[in-house]
Amino acid sequence: MTKVAIAGASGYSGEELVRLLLRHPEAEIVAVTSRQYAGKTLAEVFPKFAHYRAAQTIPFILPDAAELARLAEYVFLALPHGVAAELAVPLLKAGRRVLDLSADFRLRSAAVYEEFYGKTHPAPELLAQAVYGQPETYRERLKGAGLVACAGCYPTSILVPTLPLLRAGLIRPEGIIADSLSGVTGAGRKADLGYIYCECNESARPYGLPKHRHLSEIEQELSIAAGTQVTMQFTPHLIPLNRGILTTLYLTPSEEIRDAESAERFSRKLADMYQKVYGQEVFVRIDGDKILPDIKNIVMSNVVEFGWKVDCRTGRLIVVSAIDNLMRGASGQAIQCFNLMAGYPETTGLL
Amino acid sequence: MTKVAIAGASGYSGEELVRLLLRHPEAEIVAVTSRQYAGKTLAEVFPKFAHYRAAQTIPFILPDAAELARLAEYVFLALPHGVAAELAVPLLKAGRRVLDLSADFRLRSAAVYEEFYGKTHPAPELLAQAVYGQPETYRERLKGAGLVACAGCYPTSILVPTLPLLRAGLIRPEGIIADSLSGVTGAGRKADLGYIYCECNESARPYGLPKHRHLSEIEQELSIAAGTQVTMQFTPHLIPLNRGILTTLYLTPSEEIRDAESAERFSRKLADMYQKVYGQEVFVRIDGDKILPDIKNIVMSNVVEFGWKVDCRTGRLIVVSAIDNLMRGASGQAIQCFNLMAGYPETTGLL
Amino acid sequence: MTKVAIAGASGYSGEELVRLLLRHPEAEIVAVTSRQYAGKTLAEVFPKFAHYRAAQTIPFILPDAAELARLAEYVFLALPHGVAAELAVPLLKAGRRVLDLSADFRLRSAAVYEEFYGKTHPAPELLAQAVYGQPETYRERLKGAGLVACAGCYPTSILVPTLPLLRAGLIRPEGIIADSLSGVTGAGRKADLGYIYCECNESARPYGLPKHRHLSEIEQELSIAAGTQVTMQFTPHLIPLNRGILTTLYLTPSEEIRDAESAERFSRKLADMYQKVYGQEVFVRIDGDKILPDIKNIVMSNVVEFGWKVDCRTGRLIVVSAIDNLMRGASGQAIQCFNLMAGYPETTGLL
Amino acid sequence: MTKVAIAGASGYSGEELVRLLLRHPEAEIVAVTSRQYAGKTLAEVFPKFAHYRAAQTIPFILPDAAELARLAEYVFLALPHGVAAELAVPLLKAGRRVLDLSADFRLRSAAVYEEFYGKTHPAPELLAQAVYGQPETYRERLKGAGLVACAGCYPTSILVPTLPLLRAGLIRPEGIIADSLSGVTGAGRKADLGYIYCECNESARPYGLPKHRHLSEIEQELSIAAGTQVTMQFTPHLIPLNRGILTTLYLTPSEEIRDAESAERFSRKLADMYQKVYGQEVFVRIDGDKILPDIKNIVMSNVVEFGWKVDCRTGRLIVVSAIDNLMRGASGQAIQCFNLMAGYPETTGLL
Repeated sequence: MTKVAIAGASGYSGEELVRLLLRHPEAEIVAVTSRQYAGKTLAEVFPKFAHYRAAQTIPFILPDAAELARLAEYVFLALPHGVAAELAVPLLKAGRRVLDLSADFRLRSAAVYEEFYGKTHPAPELLAQAVYGQPETYRERLKGAGLVACAGCYPTSILVPTLPLLRAGLIRPEGIIADSLSGVTGAGRKADLGYIYCECNESARPYGLPKHRHLSEIEQELSIAAGTQVTMQFTPHLIPLNRGILTTLYLTPSEEIRDAESAERFSRKLADMYQKVYGQEVFVRIDGDKILPDIKNIVMSNVVEFGWKVDCRTGRLIVVSAIDNLMRGASGQAIQCFNLMAGYPETTGLL
Repeated sequence: MTKVAIAGASGYSGEELVRLLLRHPEAEIVAVTSRQYAGKTLAEVFPKFAHYRAAQTIPFILPDAAELARLAEYVFLALPHGVAAELAVPLLKAGRRVLDLSADFRLRSAAVYEEFYGKTHPAPELLAQAVYGQPETYRERLKGAGLVACAGCYPTSILVPTLPLLRAGLIRPEGIIADSLSGVTGAGRKADLGYIYCECNESARPYGLPKHRHLSEIEQELSIAAGTQVTMQFTPHLIPLNRGILTTLYLTPSEEIRDAESAERFSRKLADMYQKVYGQEVFVRIDGDKILPDIKNIVMSNVVEFGWKVDCRTGRLIVVSAIDNLMRGASGQAIQCFNLMAGYPETTGLL
Repeated sequence: MTKVAIAGASGYSGEELVRLLLRHPEAEIVAVTSRQYAGKTLAEVFPKFAHYRAAQTIPFILPDAAELARLAEYVFLALPHGVAAELAVPLLKAGRRVLDLSADFRLRSAAVYEEFYGKTHPAPELLAQAVYGQPETYRERLKGAGLVACAGCYPTSILVPTLPLLRAGLIRPEGIIADSLSGVTGAGRKADLGYIYCECNESARPYGLPKHRHLSEIEQELSIAAGTQVTMQFTPHLIPLNRGILTTLYLTPSEEIRDAESAERFSRKLADMYQKVYGQEVFVRIDGDKILPDIKNIVMSNVVEFGWKVDCRTGRLIVVSAIDNLMRGASGQAIQCFNLMAGYPETTGLL
Repeated sequence: MTKVAIAGASGYSGEELVRLLLRHPEAEIVAVTSRQYAGKTLAEVFPKFAHYRAAQTIPFILPDAAELARLAEYVFLALPHGVAAELAVPLLKAGRRVLDLSADFRLRSAAVYEEFYGKTHPAPELLAQAVYGQPETYRERLKGAGLVACAGCYPTSILVPTLPLLRAGLIRPEGIIADSLSGVTGAGRKADLGYIYCECNESARPYGLPKHRHLSEIEQELSIAAGTQVTMQFTPHLIPLNRGILTTLYLTPSEEIRDAESAERFSRKLADMYQKVYGQEVFVRIDGDKILPDIKNIVMSNVVEFGWKVDCRTGRLIVVSAIDNLMRGASGQAIQCFNLMAGYPETTGLL
């Protein structure tokens, strides 16, 4: 059993880490942190977990790096950006391995961080060693990583289907549009008038236009795959459900789609390429061009699902992907990274 | 056109008053109050009303009684209890007619107010003159009222079907149980962690057990109808929808229900009685014993709908009622009272 | 009072016509049709309308054109395409004015109808005289129209903000993308496994890709405005709410957006143009570039609301619009057309 | 690995059995049945399970008893009542152990079955040997059972908190009322107009009053516990969520509750009794009298959670319980029974 701790366990992704790690056969939660709940047990704070024997004894402690380092081998940080880095630095110094679910270490450039997050990066010296926590893309590097910057929710829904298209040169790097729908857990557990029930229910709205923070990490990874600077359009919307992200991508094929036949041929090329790249991936579901994803088919699962249509009228490629924002978009993917780091089968605790 | 003002227009029942009064052909909103929005127009604060020409000019002002008295003939108070009385006193002194949607003047006894609301009544001298704002019950007194204490939402769903049963002696006053379900607007527009979207969606929970504040006014009115002190059980639940209350009442018939035949006979008696009492009421829908209400049939309407079953197995009478908590449970019923006070046809602006 | 009839009153848009016409001060519903309910009154079939005195007597009759022509001056057709035309032909011959909510008369070309609807057009000789029922665009022609082809729901959300942009040459006609979200009433009232509660709730999915039928009327109207053939991308999604459409439009400005300054300048141009075109329209709300629409602000209203962002990073113009699919997307807009035809103020019964 | 089959895997409880058994470490699904899908694999029919390697090969077969008996040691029947018995008889003859999720074997009396289900019992000779599948109540008998009649969803939410009260004589057997709220999966996966999204969303309604079929098994088990015939009131309601049941029970304490002190004393008695009965149960959560359940705390879990209030005003005991209708109310509890039958730790595959 590997000893793990979760810093920031009272938000939605922290709670999801607790849920998943309680049933993980190789991990033992030794502590969770919360300024508000320090001194209580996990079962006292979250009655929903009280039937797990371990929850009766797992203590909430203050977010103290020395204490976390003393107790745990691996520390998951489910904290706001900025705050996460403050814990990451001493934990890494103490030789602990850190999985950060915030945005603090996702960007390779401290300048881009400052541009998008509006503050000086708190630990720029660590950026070079951080590995981006998207297992299908960085599997080998994750195995040896000391600091993992777990990929964001929207980015995961966009990058998994798009990166291989760029790498294979099947689409052009210009003009990419990602139109995303997200459930309300994506906004976090916070008492804000805009997120009370009746302000979200029976409604839908865009937000964060036109320069949402996640653009920074999406463009960084797309640029690496394309071998050229990618600037893209990203439009997130809030829709009335708890969990799930659906992303519709508008892409330009590298070859001209003139008619049904060339569309069909291009689609087969995609199917072959995706099969080669993801055919063996347990947590990637390729729908092909007949079916498109539906959030209900991936809720509570770690799967990224995507399908596509090649439109012979417009010449465009439309790819639609779906993930559970708390599983694949946050805590599930973090545990997938943890499994790689700790040498467990990648699906451990996630099926 | 009668000049009206709304004190406290930023909550859900205040907003609903605005919605209904903007389309009321005989009322002119001359001012709305809000400490937060003073200085802006209604259209600026609520873009959703901006297509009403009047909304372009209706000003938000501070909740000042003198100014309200200067501007309006009628003032609706959509304020928290305690705060409402503070405005009501000077408005009444200035000769204005007041429709209070809070609980401040619903109880005839200041002692009961103190028991249930935990504070000394702010203006006990006004209790005697306040008329309880339930039009089907107090229609005649409402016409001349200076101070109307608009009935609460749960109370309306319970009293409309139950009062005539008690008055007619068809049920016993002991052992009454009201089990109610309410949409989340019932909790008000407030930023509280317990009411954010993901804490209410895909969930349901009881609250306020066993002594919810509304018990005080329900028992008061039931006792008047029964001619004896009634103590009853009331269990509200929060369910995931915006608007609507569904109440299931468990009642004991005064006569013994031994078999299908006596059940059938008792049910016909009820039908006759209800027909006599409510047959001419536009805003009361009597379903009888074949159909039971469904919230979707009364949402956005001022109707109280109810049906019943006489259970020959248990000897009980089950009555189920439904209302829209913002319309019939608050602002619609207040306007129904206003129509009576101002001498307009009772349905004006409510169909 | 103008005598009106509704053919097909048991679906969602038929029911919405009933709701709106019952409160319309100048219209009298003389009959509604339904094969299933013929012989009953409106109140018997829809208890939710039973508190309207008229509903007690309005009869459901069989969809017989002669009888409808005998009873009514105006007939609303809320029927499936194909079926609508069968009634429209004899009604027009009998001199009645027809408002068709189906797609039967929206297209000017019978060939395009056949391409998108998969059948020969049932009455191609009527296409030339039909007026497209989008009041802000065809107001003058609607006044004298005998046959109105009410605009579709998605098309309305797309055309109202886009047509003036094309007419003014502010955007290029190529590369238009409309990404739309719709509530489930949009799918109609039909018992289909894909639309039962648990298959839609807590989920979201695209459908009809890449060649949804509404493309035909959208492209027709965009092409007229652009003065050139427009081919565009349209991606509808189903989201878990009852009413409402939110459309996100990706558009290419005609002038180059190089930086924040040119973006700002272009945005001001848009604001001026929209103000000129829609500044006096009661049912069009221009949000500008600071606010973007939220479905909850237009539900149960006849307003089309839209706002925009000019993105200086990508050079694109993003416009977001929202409508209530049953009001502005169907029955409300139909009544707006009816008001124009019958010479009533355009907002009658719609505020 | 124990070989299991699921007959009727296309409904919600069948699908939930698949979900749970795919991750059960000791069970191997060898076949699932469906007339409609015979010939396909589980992954083809339910893409959501496609990432389980086993799902790639598990075949859908016709519901043939001989074939099921050949393939599996244990057969779960997730079929309508009546149909389930037809398979159960030959399976038992062939020596297979059967877990029936329908109502066919829950009642000890064929006459009561006929009264409540309106048909002659298909296999009355088996009733005596069937064990009621409520593990906390019949644990020892379940271990050796050949035929388990898994408890219904509403019954489980009522029986778990109520049986010990009756057994301990803490409440009187008369006058019991259970008022229940259920999510829409409870209605099954069927294309019925009453269950399409917009007919359930933003609404709530009672149904099955006053003699719902589940009364038969609830009263049977309550009567056994009370040692006398119990007749009770049961009122189910449909509320807009996917999963979950919340039941509010109105009960009469055997001793008089006169004041706050006697209420407090009675509540402590309950707490002691429940602790004795359920204190060691992993899947029973006792909230006590300070907290009451919330559906969101038991969704996707096998826990029955309940709390209570002793009302010194009315003298009543109110108990509120919550379960996930698909887990604890159907498939999770069935697997709990299976674990007992097969000798696995009772929580296997359920944490």
